[in-house]
Amino acid sequence: MFQKYDIIVVGAGHAGCEAASAAANLGSSVLLITMNMGTIAQMSCNPAMGGVAKGQIVREIDAMGGKSGIISDQTMIQFRMLNRSKGPAMWSPRAQIDRMRFAEEWRLTLERNPNIDLWQDMVVGILVKNGKVCGVKTSLGIEIASDAVVLTNGTFLNGVIHIGEKKMGGGRTAERAATGITEQLVELGFTAGRMKTGTPPRVDGRSLDYSKMEEQWGDEKAGKFSFTDTVTPLQQRCCWITYTNGEVHETLREGFEKSPMFTGRIKGLGPRYCPSIEDKINRFAERERHQIFVEPEGWNTVEIYVNGFSTSLPEDVQYRALTKIPGFEKAKMFRPGYAIEYDFFPPTQLDLSLETKLVQNLFFAGQINGTTGYEEAAAQGFVAGINAHQKIKEKQALILKRSESYIGVLIDDLVTKGTDEPYRMFTSRAEHRLLLRQDNADERLTPIAFELGLVDNMRMKKVEEKLANAQAIIKYAKTNSVDKNKANPILANLGTTEVNQSTKLANLLGRPQISISNLKEMSADFSDYLSAFDKETIEQAEIKIKYDSYFEKELEIVDKMRKMEDKEINPDFDYNQLQSLSKEAREKLIRIKPRTLGQASRISGVSPSDISVLMVYINK
Amino acid sequence: MFQKYDIIVVGAGHAGCEAASAAANLGSSVLLITMNMGTIAQMSCNPAMGGVAKGQIVREIDAMGGKSGIISDQTMIQFRMLNRSKGPAMWSPRAQIDRMRFAEEWRLTLERNPNIDLWQDMVVGILVKNGKVCGVKTSLGIEIASDAVVLTNGTFLNGVIHIGEKKMGGGRTAERAATGITEQLVELGFTAGRMKTGTPPRVDGRSLDYSKMEEQWGDEKAGKFSFTDTVTPLQQRCCWITYTNGEVHETLREGFEKSPMFTGRIKGLGPRYCPSIEDKINRFAERERHQIFVEPEGWNTVEIYVNGFSTSLPEDVQYRALTKIPGFEKAKMFRPGYAIEYDFFPPTQLDLSLETKLVQNLFFAGQINGTTGYEEAAAQGFVAGINAHQKIKEKQALILKRSESYIGVLIDDLVTKGTDEPYRMFTSRAEHRLLLRQDNADERLTPIAFELGLVDNMRMKKVEEKLANAQAIIKYAKTNSVDKNKANPILANLGTTEVNQSTKLANLLGRPQISISNLKEMSADFSDYLSAFDKETIEQAEIKIKYDSYFEKELEIVDKMRKMEDKEINPDFDYNQLQSLSKEAREKLIRIKPRTLGQASRISGVSPSDISVLMVYINK
Repeated sequence: MFQKYDIIVVGAGHAGCEAASAAANLGSSVLLITMNMGTIAQMSCNPAMGGVAKGQIVREIDAMGGKSGIISDQTMIQFRMLNRSKGPAMWSPRAQIDRMRFAEEWRLTLERNPNIDLWQDMVVGILVKNGKVCGVKTSLGIEIASDAVVLTNGTFLNGVIHIGEKKMGGGRTAERAATGITEQLVELGFTAGRMKTGTPPRVDGRSLDYSKMEEQWGDEKAGKFSFTDTVTPLQQRCCWITYTNGEVHETLREGFEKSPMFTGRIKGLGPRYCPSIEDKINRFAERERHQIFVEPEGWNTVEIYVNGFSTSLPEDVQYRALTKIPGFEKAKMFRPGYAIEYDFFPPTQLDLSLETKLVQNLFFAGQINGTTGYEEAAAQGFVAGINAHQKIKEKQALILKRSESYIGVLIDDLVTKGTDEPYRMFTSRAEHRLLLRQDNADERLTPIAFELGLVDNMRMKKVEEKLANAQAIIKYAKTNSVDKNKANPILANLGTTEVNQSTKLANLLGRPQISISNLKEMSADFSDYLSAFDKETIEQAEIKIKYDSYFEKELEIVDKMRKMEDKEINPDFDYNQLQSLSKEAREKLIRIKPRTLGQASRISGVSPSDISVLMVYINK
Repeated sequence: MFQKYDIIVVGAGHAGCEAASAAANLGSSVLLITMNMGTIAQMSCNPAMGGVAKGQIVREIDAMGGKSGIISDQTMIQFRMLNRSKGPAMWSPRAQIDRMRFAEEWRLTLERNPNIDLWQDMVVGILVKNGKVCGVKTSLGIEIASDAVVLTNGTFLNGVIHIGEKKMGGGRTAERAATGITEQLVELGFTAGRMKTGTPPRVDGRSLDYSKMEEQWGDEKAGKFSFTDTVTPLQQRCCWITYTNGEVHETLREGFEKSPMFTGRIKGLGPRYCPSIEDKINRFAERERHQIFVEPEGWNTVEIYVNGFSTSLPEDVQYRALTKIPGFEKAKMFRPGYAIEYDFFPPTQLDLSLETKLVQNLFFAGQINGTTGYEEAAAQGFVAGINAHQKIKEKQALILKRSESYIGVLIDDLVTKGTDEPYRMFTSRAEHRLLLRQDNADERLTPIAFELGLVDNMRMKKVEEKLANAQAIIKYAKTNSVDKNKANPILANLGTTEVNQSTKLANLLGRPQISISNLKEMSADFSDYLSAFDKETIEQAEIKIKYDSYFEKELEIVDKMRKMEDKEINPDFDYNQLQSLSKEAREKLIRIKPRTLGQASRISGVSPSDISVLMVYINK
């Protein structure tokens, strides 16, 4: 009934879709199996892509020929480049997405791929022969052969949904759980764990009073994730911000005795940086309010995602607390928030290629590896799909370095450090984050994707052209000067020191107050010269000129860190005195008591910034 | 947590959506509860609306302010007016629909209705007080109060899905079954039954060879369902026709021993007129081939619905048989066909208002009443929604007569005759089908809807205007003549007798060969006169002039039938000698042995045409 496939991808969420797409684009024949063809690429939680560090990941996926960026661009309803006021390493694209459009676009993208077949069924086990996976078995009792399998089961493996004291099997609201796989893998020698995540209630936007909230508009002109020629909307939808308050917290506390979190019914750890609202008011009892982002689920629907209000308290408590939030007084819920527990496999059981150490040609990606987040899932799926292809074609695995991508950091963290709580990406997890910017993802990664055959010649040429042009601009700026009489009025105006002689453009641009557009005002020649280049190229040159010194400083720190790697720490060291450590790092350091800075640096949740803090103290 | 609602509608399929919309538009506050907000208004089976008798129902719903017609118009990918070559009573609009767009438009339509709230949950029971329903209880343990409840549970009540020897609980593929309601209703004294329906496999359109199939295009200009100003697409998608053959049948037969139908694992009766392919080759063993309609599921998707190939044979048998159909040699399935068994409540337990006799203010609509078909479901939902509103506002129930609508025939049949197999509408079920045409649904029903307050003044005025204009045209045609010299060349050309003197336009139009456009050629005056009227109005006048004599004849037959109602039949009468009886009628008459023609006429499945056949024989 089925041909033998090169690769079977199990699950069609963000990980599964990118895995199938990448492997198929490399030339593998792929069967993508989903439990429900109507729910391909569902955004199970918030209707948004990107954000700090996550937006960079989407750019990296896009730079390598993945689809998440393109589809986000096509389906966004609002775009913001976060952290524009900070240095370029912090600039992070984030978009609100039309949930239905996103799912539809992904499905059509898969359908258009001639190397992808689709099959609706539940995979209940893998087929293994001589320590190598050779296919899957489905709930219909069908055995389908393949050379490699990528498991991207999300929250479906033995998923249990909790709302207050109620508990039901399910992989997502109104969807069944998947069974069989965990048990088989454990029998094969895998270690399984249990994690937890959650989602807020959805409400009827017509029942909200937006006049009591702060408007949050997107950027004036919507930016985009993709380096390709995607078009983003001319108009955008408004979001809103509101806040919880003491009354909301009090009401929520009334439900604590029925909370599946606090009564111990949920054993799995939840995402630390995306806590439930009950977690927040419990852990940060001193905080008088928490921010709530009121996010539309699409262009036309009235459904609203209550970002920041994830909860598994009883639905009546959710409701009563909601109605005490300004603007939510008359809120009507569409469905309650809930927590979900599911099986994951500690990712230290994987190689850096995301292949399992125990079973050859078997790859894991997404929440099955203990991560959280669409972007993290998509990145892993993308890499797993590529490496499944590379493996069966006997080619070298794609292993991205920590110094060249967030994706490299993500996978190295997972595989090297493991995680016992849902892993989320932060800029602070990357030692070299100044180099891992959203603006240069193409420079960093498109050549690698080109080598693999994932992006075509034309696209590669465009990147090379952009880089060459940026270099030309840099060279121009370093060799051409601006006349002091032209420069000084503008410098004065910008509140920066005037110059005594004609000065190189690049030198002026090094000053924080000065942008490339100021230079254009000072020099008609430069302005003329730049008119031949596009916005992205000029921006790239500007960043490279402007932040050159920062990049060098960063490299020094990196070097220092390497030297300090073996530096000893007294096991009785009192971490509580270091207030600048993150809360998570402090907890973990106290628990694990590392003997060296190197050991400390490999503990999950202890970030490079935490290590810097430690280093500074120990050096004293 | 919830206000008290006027009406709670349980289920958001075609019945539930129309029920909620109608009740809300009449002014009731409505809560629509669905198990999954992502699957509102799913077309669970074929991606099409309308067809013979069914298209008329959609027109009737539309004429009364329902939404199925408008949404079908907005989301159609192909339109055909079936039976154009037959008399106008047989003209039946049918459209292929974009499945995803249809569901989305319904959801947005509901969202835009200020009187409708939505809640995602499973209703597990109704609340009853003093023999009157007063709300529902959900799986979350929530009790929600209301004055009336409309149950539209579709195939979800204790749904069991069968594929070959495999069996799983579910209300639809990849969706859970609903539990609790049947058991409670049985405890309350209701009789429940079990029915069965099925659906074909879905295949990948890219794997088909269309060159081996017949193209089936829509009408040159897409018509529409709605009497309102909807716009239908300028371009349409092509469908295809292919055929099974001996090899296909042979392959299917190999699976018969594992068929849940033939091995008795399925107890419920399935839809007689929408049989599974195994049923067809079993019951009509002499037929060498069966038609297969190859229908795209939307504008962009490659998913194809294999209309005519409904099956619950094992998936490998489905696959092997499929690949023996011309054009399907390399077919890839997305998911197998399956049969589903579910609970229904024999509809003789209802009043003509669709309220249950046992529990006041409780209404049933759709498959729960033993019907099949989106249109039948929508019609019942529409009426149940209206009557739930009327009941709680102490207004008269809407009971449509058999002589004024298919909806009246449908509900009278259900309530009076009951059904033990999925009931589907046919033109032959209506005694007065010549009067129940798609073209005059507005004339028949918009005034009733206007009285109820479901359509506004402007719309009512438009109908009155159309009728008045048609009458004016008729009057003109009856009083104005055409010159014989102008008429005769055209009459000769059309192959009909020439006239000796100037003749009334209406008289000429009575001839089957002559259309109103022929008359326009003969008479410049008439042509000028008509230029003031729109297409629909002129067509209305044409039909009324042309078929006047047929309408009268029909009325005579109806009268005769009434007189013969008590005519006795010998219980040992050999119905097998009457070859013109439908197969169903013969089976039922042999089984039930009615004593009178009247009794015979009330047996479900014995149609007015069957009664005519009997009448003719008995009169001999």
